[in-house]
Amino acid sequence: MKLTINRLALLKVLNTVSVAIEQKSPTPAFLNFKLDMKEDNLEITGSNNDLTIKSSLPVQNEDNIIISDYTCGSTLISAKYLLDIVRKLDSDTLTIEVIDEVIARISDEKSKFQLNSMRSEEYPDLDLSISGKKVMFPCDDFKRIINQVAFAASTKEVRPILTAVNIKAFKDRLEFVATDSYRLSKKIYELSNKDEFEANIPVNSLVIVSKLIEDEDINLNISNNKVVFEFGNTTVYSRLISGDFPKTSRMIPDHYPFVLRVKSSSFIDAMDRVSLLSTEKERIVKLELDADYVEISSKSEQIGSARESVDMFEYSGDRFSISFNEDYVSDAIKACMSEDVIISFAGEMNAFKVSASDDESIVQIITPVRSYY
Amino acid sequence: MKLTINRLALLKVLNTVSVAIEQKSPTPAFLNFKLDMKEDNLEITGSNNDLTIKSSLPVQNEDNIIISDYTCGSTLISAKYLLDIVRKLDSDTLTIEVIDEVIARISDEKSKFQLNSMRSEEYPDLDLSISGKKVMFPCDDFKRIINQVAFAASTKEVRPILTAVNIKAFKDRLEFVATDSYRLSKKIYELSNKDEFEANIPVNSLVIVSKLIEDEDINLNISNNKVVFEFGNTTVYSRLISGDFPKTSRMIPDHYPFVLRVKSSSFIDAMDRVSLLSTEKERIVKLELDADYVEISSKSEQIGSARESVDMFEYSGDRFSISFNEDYVSDAIKACMSEDVIISFAGEMNAFKVSASDDESIVQIITPVRSYY
Repeated sequence: MKLTINRLALLKVLNTVSVAIEQKSPTPAFLNFKLDMKEDNLEITGSNNDLTIKSSLPVQNEDNIIISDYTCGSTLISAKYLLDIVRKLDSDTLTIEVIDEVIARISDEKSKFQLNSMRSEEYPDLDLSISGKKVMFPCDDFKRIINQVAFAASTKEVRPILTAVNIKAFKDRLEFVATDSYRLSKKIYELSNKDEFEANIPVNSLVIVSKLIEDEDINLNISNNKVVFEFGNTTVYSRLISGDFPKTSRMIPDHYPFVLRVKSSSFIDAMDRVSLLSTEKERIVKLELDADYVEISSKSEQIGSARESVDMFEYSGDRFSISFNEDYVSDAIKACMSEDVIISFAGEMNAFKVSASDDESIVQIITPVRSYY
Repeated sequence: MKLTINRLALLKVLNTVSVAIEQKSPTPAFLNFKLDMKEDNLEITGSNNDLTIKSSLPVQNEDNIIISDYTCGSTLISAKYLLDIVRKLDSDTLTIEVIDEVIARISDEKSKFQLNSMRSEEYPDLDLSISGKKVMFPCDDFKRIINQVAFAASTKEVRPILTAVNIKAFKDRLEFVATDSYRLSKKIYELSNKDEFEANIPVNSLVIVSKLIEDEDINLNISNNKVVFEFGNTTVYSRLISGDFPKTSRMIPDHYPFVLRVKSSSFIDAMDRVSLLSTEKERIVKLELDADYVEISSKSEQIGSARESVDMFEYSGDRFSISFNEDYVSDAIKACMSEDVIISFAGEMNAFKVSASDDESIVQIITPVRSYY
């Protein structure tokens, strides 16, 4: 195998594929890029077994020669070192040549690197078939959905199912739900489906893909045990999380006697200031509502107290107060992506709802905390 | 004590003074800002005992009112919380008021914070006298000296004296020397002195001061056990490090049969690439010199090898090779602040010298390492 390749084009693909490669692995082959030089393109694969990214570079892109002087073949080259080398060389093109099957020589006019490499047969067999139910999203829609939902998933592996985003396909819409059991985010995306199905996609895979796509449409192919994302020259394969996603509909109250409408950014800033004095990891604030005032406060025996009045609000309901984790409410308000938000309370110890004033497709549910003062 | 103050002016002073305050301290009072509202200025002090920063804000600066509506007095307020509050408030002015001696109320139109505070009598007595030998530097000269010398000091507390920069004053010049025992940086600064003296100033204090000064001249006042830096409205007090600084002159060879002149930036880039393959913490490269070539290489059994030829060089001497820590040579070349550098070798196992082609005031000495291939 031998090829001379445009350095920046190669660097872009290596950066994409490297996202799937971890620093350590029980399978040494997974620390490598797999390079396959074929008749008309170079395929590069990286994997950590749960997530695999494959991306390809054509020999020629319209009138631009990307790869020249090549012979077909494949090899495994250390991801860390190949990425560093391609990043730090400063020439326009570089040459990769495999010698005696176990040495990869990477060179330009000034520099010569020889890396110990592995035979491509040592790479584990991966199921890279593409099958299952297909759904297509414009790039911006996909990014927006992930932005609005992903943060509410759990980051702890204690209950693996909560590290997934649950996708349910109905005839007329998709529903995305994430919850860490203290809060929930639900997004409804309208489109017409042939099939009804459900899948639990690891939130990390969704976040990775939403960062990798640039402006292409994206296809999701969802089968029983994996999801395959296709966009541009890149294919991302992710396992699904098995098990039943919790029934979240019962977390959502159906009657809200206390309804507050506020400016998103000034409400977030006020909570941010008031929660400065909290000592705990969770930044708890108390919200007090009445016809003519909205106040946020916090108190800590050790440090002191803070209180701020919120202006520009509309409130309907009796006098009411509730305490909550400020970060959860901030996250929920940001996810609404709306100038004004409506916060609807069912009672002091009931979950409450944060929603956008101008977008019914997104709903956030948050559990309050007990107030100590 | 009570005062209403311009928020951004206060924030700037708090940021400066907070540099001396640590997150934890055996003396709880040191976790606070000391605020002294006097007749015509507000003095703010922060300290960790070894380093103290005092900065002041005038009541009025030319035509601008900085502080209004004030009564004199002093208090201690938690540095962490006061800084956060002043940073996050969004009004132009704020009011600080001490109530019952142990509560500080910080407020603007919307927000009210009450912080538990301490009486100013609980602040430890600090020696804030200013005495000793005086030396003055223009701001840029001081920053340049610290940039060129500080990096060579030790960061390890094993030999505290090596965490100092040694300053020696002669009638016609100051000499600054720092060494971690593997490398040495020496800067000569010409000026005329009344006195000859020597002091070991903690490198951290010098770096902190060089970051704090903006464009003012700076005065150093060096006495037996402390140095006081004066600039603008700020005074920084630092202990000196006791003990004798090592005699460094014997580290510097006096005869160099092998002399290489190279372009600083391209030589640094080449070393940076070649050292990519080093596994160890120390990035060791080998330099090979002859009349018609200069090559840098590295080798690792596990990973592979790298080799790069350097162009645009001048070399006088026999064929010669030496190995060294790439980071040390990069640091030394950068500290020369010169387009070309001259690297002078005394022998394969002798310390070598890096110097600027156009500036005799700066000299860097580096110890080589044994080469294994």
